[in-house]
Amino acid sequence: MADLDTLLAIHAIHGLKARYFRFVDTKRWDDLRSLFTPDALIYFPELQLHHPGMAIVPSPLDEAMASIITSLTGVLSVHQGFMPEIEILSDTEARGIWAMEDWLSWPSQDGGLPGMQVRGHGHYHEDYRRVVGQWRIHRLTLTRLSLASHSTTRVIAEQPNPA
Amino acid sequence: MADLDTLLAIHAIHGLKARYFRFVDTKRWDDLRSLFTPDALIYFPELQLHHPGMAIVPSPLDEAMASIITSLTGVLSVHQGFMPEIEILSDTEARGIWAMEDWLSWPSQDGGLPGMQVRGHGHYHEDYRRVVGQWRIHRLTLTRLSLASHSTTRVIAEQPNPA
Amino acid sequence: MADLDTLLAIHAIHGLKARYFRFVDTKRWDDLRSLFTPDALIYFPELQLHHPGMAIVPSPLDEAMASIITSLTGVLSVHQGFMPEIEILSDTEARGIWAMEDWLSWPSQDGGLPGMQVRGHGHYHEDYRRVVGQWRIHRLTLTRLSLASHSTTRVIAEQPNPA
Repeated sequence: MADLDTLLAIHAIHGLKARYFRFVDTKRWDDLRSLFTPDALIYFPELQLHHPGMAIVPSPLDEAMASIITSLTGVLSVHQGFMPEIEILSDTEARGIWAMEDWLSWPSQDGGLPGMQVRGHGHYHEDYRRVVGQWRIHRLTLTRLSLASHSTTRVIAEQPNPA
Repeated sequence: MADLDTLLAIHAIHGLKARYFRFVDTKRWDDLRSLFTPDALIYFPELQLHHPGMAIVPSPLDEAMASIITSLTGVLSVHQGFMPEIEILSDTEARGIWAMEDWLSWPSQDGGLPGMQVRGHGHYHEDYRRVVGQWRIHRLTLTRLSLASHSTTRVIAEQPNPA
Repeated sequence: MADLDTLLAIHAIHGLKARYFRFVDTKRWDDLRSLFTPDALIYFPELQLHHPGMAIVPSPLDEAMASIITSLTGVLSVHQGFMPEIEILSDTEARGIWAMEDWLSWPSQDGGLPGMQVRGHGHYHEDYRRVVGQWRIHRLTLTRLSLASHSTTRVIAEQPNPA
């Protein structure tokens, strides 16, 4: 791939991930879904925390979207991306790593107690495919540096990518 | 516009916004002002919070700069930008969206009580113009995902852009 | 330098700094060290806080790496970079400014008390050299907007670059 085409592809993938963050936090679910290939696989390690015994397998898009929508409906979320490392492998294949932070804030509880807040940090490891001229996320794996609930920091070592 | 010129324009606008953040937080007011077109319009929704009845209209540059300087003098501020989505519309016009976080910390009060802190998240929606070869911010509208004072999170829905 | 080569160099330096952050926070010390020129000079103002009387001089790479490893071993760290301003000065020389945030979290203490946490903000001011085709960090100077331990914010004015 020529140098200029490589830079244009990187720019397109930066914009793809920018929309990912914006659509998650403004809860535009259909727009979010359109950023993935139909056969995308998505892995969030949080599922491990809730179900320690379950197999570490990525979710297909339908299941991941349902999980995202259930988790974030009624919750204020802010997801931030940093410091992309994108490699263009061919005219239709690329991969990338992004540092990330997320912050979720649940509504106040009965009696006026403040709601739960969770802050996390980690890295997205992603594969991209160009389909009909548009770059899409084909595989997304999140590894965690930490997850913190209020002042209690739970350290999670960088996890190996799932199978 | 040729692909290479588009990439160069995007790079220039990334640098323009980088200076915006740096000049705000290091309080270089004249340098900050120079990043805008003379007829720029600027809209921060915080004004609505303080004056709920006021019309949602953007401020001209003189008024916006006076408001920024009043708000931030003597206050530690950190403004962060993420995940740009820049569109070059012509040789002299462009627009963009940036995710943002800001954190303001007021000095300790009499008696040693810690000062107020406010953390916010949202998106800048901006128009740019190239004037005498230099990209400038021509219109800036901030929408908010949230504003939080200490542990109390005040959720602000994404607001429609002002007239 | 031609425009396309300039954009490619900027992209390479963005990737260099992305690896810097990732290798710091995943504690890949040998990989981190490989991002610097052998004669790199590194200056972190925190040394001033601990030793107020010491001369403000940057550290050579060996000393800086030893200090980084000592500071971060056993500590959860998250370093974030924002809003690069990269200038390519020649085929082998460049400089840049990055906004940054870092967060360090020490393990819980005996008796279950939560460990210390420190959050800081500032800017990296860096020189780069291209050596055998690879961009490397040749000089790194961190200036601070603030350092905060838990709720106590310690404001540090932007410091002049050291000699």
